[in-house]
Amino acid sequence: MILQPKYLTGDPAAINDFIDRFDVFLFDCDGVLWSGDHLFEGVVETLELLRSKGKKTIFVTNNSSKSRPQYQEKFTALGIPSHVDEIFGSSYSAAIYISRILKLEPPKNKVFVLGEVGIENELRGENVPFVGGTDPAYRRDMTPEDWTGLADGSLLDPEVGCVLTGLDLHINYLKLAHAYQYLRRGAVFLATNTDATFPANHSFFPGAGSMSTPLANMMGTKPVALGKPSQAMMDAIEGKFQLDRARTCMVGDRLDTDIKFGIEGRLGGTLAVQTGVNKKSDWEAEDAAAVPAYFVDKLSDLRAAAE
Amino acid sequence: MILQPKYLTGDPAAINDFIDRFDVFLFDCDGVLWSGDHLFEGVVETLELLRSKGKKTIFVTNNSSKSRPQYQEKFTALGIPSHVDEIFGSSYSAAIYISRILKLEPPKNKVFVLGEVGIENELRGENVPFVGGTDPAYRRDMTPEDWTGLADGSLLDPEVGCVLTGLDLHINYLKLAHAYQYLRRGAVFLATNTDATFPANHSFFPGAGSMSTPLANMMGTKPVALGKPSQAMMDAIEGKFQLDRARTCMVGDRLDTDIKFGIEGRLGGTLAVQTGVNKKSDWEAEDAAAVPAYFVDKLSDLRAAAE
Repeated sequence: MILQPKYLTGDPAAINDFIDRFDVFLFDCDGVLWSGDHLFEGVVETLELLRSKGKKTIFVTNNSSKSRPQYQEKFTALGIPSHVDEIFGSSYSAAIYISRILKLEPPKNKVFVLGEVGIENELRGENVPFVGGTDPAYRRDMTPEDWTGLADGSLLDPEVGCVLTGLDLHINYLKLAHAYQYLRRGAVFLATNTDATFPANHSFFPGAGSMSTPLANMMGTKPVALGKPSQAMMDAIEGKFQLDRARTCMVGDRLDTDIKFGIEGRLGGTLAVQTGVNKKSDWEAEDAAAVPAYFVDKLSDLRAAAE
Repeated sequence: MILQPKYLTGDPAAINDFIDRFDVFLFDCDGVLWSGDHLFEGVVETLELLRSKGKKTIFVTNNSSKSRPQYQEKFTALGIPSHVDEIFGSSYSAAIYISRILKLEPPKNKVFVLGEVGIENELRGENVPFVGGTDPAYRRDMTPEDWTGLADGSLLDPEVGCVLTGLDLHINYLKLAHAYQYLRRGAVFLATNTDATFPANHSFFPGAGSMSTPLANMMGTKPVALGKPSQAMMDAIEGKFQLDRARTCMVGDRLDTDIKFGIEGRLGGTLAVQTGVNKKSDWEAEDAAAVPAYFVDKLSDLRAAAE
């Protein structure tokens, strides 16, 4: 059975019907609400319309470099009203996964972080002990003592039972070597997300996947990724918000993360917008990564809904 | 047709016959001649025996962090007589490939190096211009100017037409972002080798593949690798030494690099030693990466040859 995605732009009756089907809307951010630092026109009003109809809005992002309060600052700077509790990032998802699902026990309950402060803040929020991360002790060249101490394990923290990778703008050989030695000794391998790149300044830059793929290549195993489209993230969202999946819709611009995330999570619906990575021709292709249930040109097309 | 590898250890007649079949012996180094800084017993005498019988000895290594003169220092330090011309490393292989096969023409003839001084020295030897590498200007954190200048290209060298990755102990985000932007703009993607790890201090550490796999993941394409088992390296060796492949034998410890390299290069023979990564059970396995023509316990077993 091939489902034909329903086009909502310019069809107020269909938009009303679409909105009425859901209580909760999960929004991807970049490519949906904004592009880089450019807020799309009409986004604030569209979110206000949905909220005025009693809908819950949740923002789901694979961005791992910012904690939720840091990410909320971006919403505020762009003029989008939001609550920190509405924001769900892959760092938070990872922290929840470690604390509530992995439940690492002493003496192997520390996390070695290959990533930035956003991950550290979320781990702190869940009382998960960690090493690495932004610690200046790891921001330096290898020394002869590092080669011997990493090889024989004397420089490793025996309490580390997990390696968590995310976007690390301070990646270096010393950190990679630490992460690899912990993994060789049996640490659980997690990633906030494995996006190869991320958009910035109207171009693309190395993403969190650039930190995990060398380790995956060395180990011959992939990390458990906690960002979209991982269902570990959906489980964490459901656990936190107690939402009814059948009455929830995922809104996004990427088929291989956002739309796939909603479909595999068996949500009631998925809505694709064409202001980001993927366009209509992508889901009409034979090898489409996923096909949305609904689509619009841009998010603010939903404002045509009747009052 | 399944060939049964011939076991030479303790069989002087078979060893004599083996040696007589070849004029040239290509040796992998680590795991064959030595392990880390430990020279195997009898290696010097074995090489002397082969040379006394008029055989040519060539040392073929994927090590990309050292130039040939630097690598020769290791031979000397371990007490192995050698000539720099006998040494063939993957950095040299890459330099030869760029200068004699790619033949990059101005104004796009520069190489962006993600690697160490060994690569730089070999490129200089072939008069190939390069940027990046050990330049201290690239050993720092990203600045706001980097994000904008890398995205719009104003910080990029318009003459770069090739990205060459090798083991870089000073890998960082700024270098990865540079390499990625050059590749996005059409630079040829090369790697000295793509080994996931390399042995050191009786353990393993992140190898040259840790520098290329993030870029391969971002680009969706793999680099041309110039180390074993790449036949680009065999072509370069043949071109330099004018050897007769039918009268040449590859000696190594790894099936997926050394033995595969010799077989795919259609050499007259391959000899596996069991002092490194792979053992007899590996090539007897159903999914063996490659099967050698001959094998011994250790290289010095060849000393049982009759005078």
